[in-house]
Amino acid sequence: MSEARIWHGGDLDEARRLFPDAPEPWIDLSTGINPIAYPMPPLPARLFERLPSPADHRDLEAAAAEAYGAADPAMVVGAPGTQVLISLLPILWPRSRVTILGPTYAEHAHAWRGAGHAVAEIGSLDEAGEADILVVVNPNNPDGRLLRREVLLEQAVRFGRRGGRLLVDEAFADFDGNETLVSVLPENTVVLRSFGKTYGLAGVRLGFAVAATTFAETLRKALGPWSVSGPAMEVGRRALRDRSWREAAQAARAEDARRLDALLEPLSSRAPGGTILYRLMDSSRASDVFSHLGHHGIWVRRFQHDPRLLRFGLPGSAEAWRRLETVLADLHKG
Amino acid sequence: MSEARIWHGGDLDEARRLFPDAPEPWIDLSTGINPIAYPMPPLPARLFERLPSPADHRDLEAAAAEAYGAADPAMVVGAPGTQVLISLLPILWPRSRVTILGPTYAEHAHAWRGAGHAVAEIGSLDEAGEADILVVVNPNNPDGRLLRREVLLEQAVRFGRRGGRLLVDEAFADFDGNETLVSVLPENTVVLRSFGKTYGLAGVRLGFAVAATTFAETLRKALGPWSVSGPAMEVGRRALRDRSWREAAQAARAEDARRLDALLEPLSSRAPGGTILYRLMDSSRASDVFSHLGHHGIWVRRFQHDPRLLRFGLPGSAEAWRRLETVLADLHKG
Repeated sequence: MSEARIWHGGDLDEARRLFPDAPEPWIDLSTGINPIAYPMPPLPARLFERLPSPADHRDLEAAAAEAYGAADPAMVVGAPGTQVLISLLPILWPRSRVTILGPTYAEHAHAWRGAGHAVAEIGSLDEAGEADILVVVNPNNPDGRLLRREVLLEQAVRFGRRGGRLLVDEAFADFDGNETLVSVLPENTVVLRSFGKTYGLAGVRLGFAVAATTFAETLRKALGPWSVSGPAMEVGRRALRDRSWREAAQAARAEDARRLDALLEPLSSRAPGGTILYRLMDSSRASDVFSHLGHHGIWVRRFQHDPRLLRFGLPGSAEAWRRLETVLADLHKG
Repeated sequence: MSEARIWHGGDLDEARRLFPDAPEPWIDLSTGINPIAYPMPPLPARLFERLPSPADHRDLEAAAAEAYGAADPAMVVGAPGTQVLISLLPILWPRSRVTILGPTYAEHAHAWRGAGHAVAEIGSLDEAGEADILVVVNPNNPDGRLLRREVLLEQAVRFGRRGGRLLVDEAFADFDGNETLVSVLPENTVVLRSFGKTYGLAGVRLGFAVAATTFAETLRKALGPWSVSGPAMEVGRRALRDRSWREAAQAARAEDARRLDALLEPLSSRAPGGTILYRLMDSSRASDVFSHLGHHGIWVRRFQHDPRLLRFGLPGSAEAWRRLETVLADLHKG
């Protein structure tokens, strides 16, 4: 199964296998998910028992359109998480030459290769050559590299000239999103937006694609009606319309990110990168740091493409901050 | 959008539009969903907040394999409802000549046509001719026609000879399932099983495909990891292992179905058909019955292909039974 081959954050089973003697409970800093979740609303029985209504689904997409700045709710397609969209797009589009601006979230290359496309990872947009499809994660995961909107619009024009397309995964754009393409979306571009990361609700499975209305309709058909659960619809509609929560969360997490950077800097060879929801440390001691944290029950994210990198999510409680500070202080001494 | 074009059960917005003066609350008998839901377990915050783990997903598929009688859990693919599988299969399989044994659940033809296949509805398996793909809903929705397993296995062999395949939608087989193919699954056959109908939890979005392991893996890839939500996984694992609940529910709903038949028979031109979870009335007065029920706040299911048919789900409370009995008694007099 794909999850066995690609390293992901969030799998504490793997943490327990690697560090069987670590103290419980584990502190999971391996994901880029907001550790302070949007409060779940009451979930009346009907949300579990009845099929979500088409009107509710449309209202969810309208709430997302407003939150993300889409011109037309018909351009927004609700899905049970963005992952299913990442997996689906390579099946919907004809086999192509796909370039992915990397290194980045590994599921993109995995999905395109799995569907039979020719995939090349490029380190810079200058290398895009004559590819048919360009995949960019913006801001990028894990390094936080943020491409300016104009640069992507230029690529959309360039690819458009030969019938090509762009897929821009804006999974982390809610909090780091000055360059989002949603409000200026070119016809040949699909943008993905994640709900679970911003709102700390990865388990509800909710995400969106934003695309020109004709392609949005193709995606909608591929998912069929009712792909989004009743509970996801309920919390999604509410949370996406809660601008004040989002603004307060952004400010609080930005403060957390600064606090985390201060802890990581003494061990890093350069200033940590990343986004508000995760920080990336580049260190010659990364492997030691990973093991030391692991033995103390703190799980962070390594990367197959570069052993010098570790990604840290934000601690979600005073106790988690205290444990992280203590364990990192050991390393500073060591 | 597809849901605007196909009539479905469960959309009370439509009921309220058609019968604006009907008393609230509506009694929704328009679906084939068990009205007495499996009790939702406690849902701890982590189910909403964290990504479901790969181990939990495998355990869900193992529970489904056991409940449905699949030889190997690797043959079972969990999905956010069977509808997404119905929509996805026509995209995964090359464009073909598809025959659908009808009349049946309209989303099948809709999905295959939408993906560019040549679709023919046939009234009998003898008409399958040289098609590449045969789609059968067994037991059938709405008439309850149940094909014997041997008949379908014969078709699987016949289609297999020319590289063809079968899709057998066993959405209602949990309670009417003596002929399920799961335990004797041919290599070229995909079976769909619905969770929401049996357990009265359509809003959680959970369903399964059962297929040969190589094709199961293709489906798994198309959905990506994490397509099933944390809450769906939690209740799914528990409910699928609860054989005693399922047996008691089957007996109770079968009793309900007999009680409903007794109410419908005086208005029907022949004995009602259907499955344990819905009954189909054939009546020259169907249109009157539909309107009369609607004006009294009871919503049943009409069919585009035959105005003589009405499908009744099972009432879920003493009050719902009483209202249905009263309104139908008016009609007997009338």
